Amino acid sequence: MAELAAPRVERHDDVVTLTMCRPSRRNALSREHLTQLLAAVREVGDTDATALVVAAEGPVFSAGHDFADVSGAPLADVRSLLALCTEFMQTLHEVPQVVVARVHALATAAGAQLVASCDLAVAAGSAGFAAPGGKGGWFCHTPMVPIARNVGRKRAMELALTGDVIDARTALDWGLVNRVVPDGELDAAVADLVHRATRGSRASKAWGKRAMYAQLDRPEADAYLQAVETMAAASQLEGAREGMAAFLGKRPAVWTD
Amino acid sequence: MAELAAPRVERHDDVVTLTMCRPSRRNALSREHLTQLLAAVREVGDTDATALVVAAEGPVFSAGHDFADVSGAPLADVRSLLALCTEFMQTLHEVPQVVVARVHALATAAGAQLVASCDLAVAAGSAGFAAPGGKGGWFCHTPMVPIARNVGRKRAMELALTGDVIDARTALDWGLVNRVVPDGELDAAVADLVHRATRGSRASKAWGKRAMYAQLDRPEADAYLQAVETMAAASQLEGAREGMAAFLGKRPAVWTD
Amino acid sequence: MAELAAPRVERHDDVVTLTMCRPSRRNALSREHLTQLLAAVREVGDTDATALVVAAEGPVFSAGHDFADVSGAPLADVRSLLALCTEFMQTLHEVPQVVVARVHALATAAGAQLVASCDLAVAAGSAGFAAPGGKGGWFCHTPMVPIARNVGRKRAMELALTGDVIDARTALDWGLVNRVVPDGELDAAVADLVHRATRGSRASKAWGKRAMYAQLDRPEADAYLQAVETMAAASQLEGAREGMAAFLGKRPAVWTD
Repeated sequence: MAELAAPRVERHDDVVTLTMCRPSRRNALSREHLTQLLAAVREVGDTDATALVVAAEGPVFSAGHDFADVSGAPLADVRSLLALCTEFMQTLHEVPQVVVARVHALATAAGAQLVASCDLAVAAGSAGFAAPGGKGGWFCHTPMVPIARNVGRKRAMELALTGDVIDARTALDWGLVNRVVPDGELDAAVADLVHRATRGSRASKAWGKRAMYAQLDRPEADAYLQAVETMAAASQLEGAREGMAAFLGKRPAVWTD
Repeated sequence: MAELAAPRVERHDDVVTLTMCRPSRRNALSREHLTQLLAAVREVGDTDATALVVAAEGPVFSAGHDFADVSGAPLADVRSLLALCTEFMQTLHEVPQVVVARVHALATAAGAQLVASCDLAVAAGSAGFAAPGGKGGWFCHTPMVPIARNVGRKRAMELALTGDVIDARTALDWGLVNRVVPDGELDAAVADLVHRATRGSRASKAWGKRAMYAQLDRPEADAYLQAVETMAAASQLEGAREGMAAFLGKRPAVWTD
Repeated sequence: MAELAAPRVERHDDVVTLTMCRPSRRNALSREHLTQLLAAVREVGDTDATALVVAAEGPVFSAGHDFADVSGAPLADVRSLLALCTEFMQTLHEVPQVVVARVHALATAAGAQLVASCDLAVAAGSAGFAAPGGKGGWFCHTPMVPIARNVGRKRAMELALTGDVIDARTALDWGLVNRVVPDGELDAAVADLVHRATRGSRASKAWGKRAMYAQLDRPEADAYLQAVETMAAASQLEGAREGMAAFLGKRPAVWTD
């Protein structure tokens, strides 16, 4: 059945696009779908691609968990589902690629969590974001972990408690996405941001994004302890040596890693 | 004396409004007033009300601590006053109700801390916010704990170091409040936000807001460890089961908790 | 050589201005320059000045590290350079003065880190900010520690991954600076903010800013544990006693510390 399709993985040059294509299920993050998505992201992570674009087809970007997985399920099953979902979200932080969400439509609950978990996000003007559990019976506890880390506290509480949809422009203002463009310009805007975010040494950037996530949310002094060691070690990488030598020699750098 | 009145507690349907009514004292958070406010909030917390609106009467929302409690007082007395104040602020996070500040006028020092400590806040256009200790002799150390967690770091430093008042529009821009409306529309805006924020299962939301405060400000991985367990357990609540069954059965949910 | 000049330290009334004056080196934070800057800041810290303005001369505010210090250097040397740089940045948090960045032009990498590390910042309209390591070979690990604590997560990732320059207006919107003014009004705007941020008791404010940095980025309950003790103890300071006595006596306060 078309609606149970595995996510599509396409590579053009150094950019891989991972497209959820279960429009009739609103790209729900069922256990099966999450398993496929996690496997696909891990596979991309092992390649030399520089960017991973997370996209979707259909009227909804992703509606989050599939209640069919959860309704009436025992606690252990729900825990393992949420642990799988969390592993997927955290893997987006860990892969060496720059991960960019391409949000063309509504992203709710774990779907909004997915946007919040990507390194960067570009939204079409008609996109929207919500954590609707708060106006239902199952609060969006795990989605609010990364969402609250993208927007301010009062805004996080508003999303979580009201469950209302915010539009793309508000999401930009609150810092949940990096760009909002008219719907017809979404692909061009994603391509532009991907281009900008993938310049330079791939190895340097891959280490950079992991180290960023490791230092965020920590007291500044703790973050510095880690960042000084990381940056000192990173100075020994081939990319760092080449970048500095090129700069000092007033020539373009040639990245080999 | 009218100015030493206890806060007024009024319930309409499922919404309790707690009104500070010591206008001649600028609703200062004296030890006596804090004791009354804390007792009132705890009492509301034990009811089945869905929302608690924190309001005030008079030309000032609240001017914060009463210097008459502090001037010349020994350290132990000041510590116990601040511990009481902190307990009041933290109790706003812990009660099962959605707590909404209704800010009609100037909120300073612990008065601004009170707004920062509510889950949500609606301000009238003529409201203002300040942490004036910084331009006096007693720095707003405890007020800045929740205020800094609502606004950015440079903005927190500006509030704390200058002591200047920011207007309601700036407070909205910085994320300290959720809505700013013309003075005459304040009650309607509070009612609308309360309505939006109290839909769904009360038990689910009560757990949700406590869990949110527990996971904020922590490294993301730590927050996930907690949120996965909480959300898995929350799936077993009556509200979660009803919400999912209603969704899957395409019928309206009926919340019994 | 003029371009290797030590930073200039000038005191007018209670305000010290520290000016980087190596325009031909784009005020790079070489080991020698950092050593001079750190010594100057420590010396100011031991005076009774109330404010420290960090300024620069030339077409660039500061371009960050000097690659001549790093290119081909062994890990231990780079680590000690970064540790020195971190000590400089942290010392800006620790000195009793209010520290205000006067950003007249482009601030990149550790130059942007310097702006992020000042308590407050005023930018000219033609200023800009970037963390360019991400588009080169040496990721801006340590600069992103304070930068990420000033702006939101998605914005921090955008700065770090793209390396692109944001203009002063965007920096204001994201919370990296407190004011943006036309170039010709920069000194007046700095003077105004310095004036506003240095009113009141110097001792109270000096403790206040250190305590702020100590409580930020921590779970709120931990922050309160510290802030209650600090604020109680601070109530015993001469400045606190004077400020409260003056307020209660309806007279202007006279600050002696």
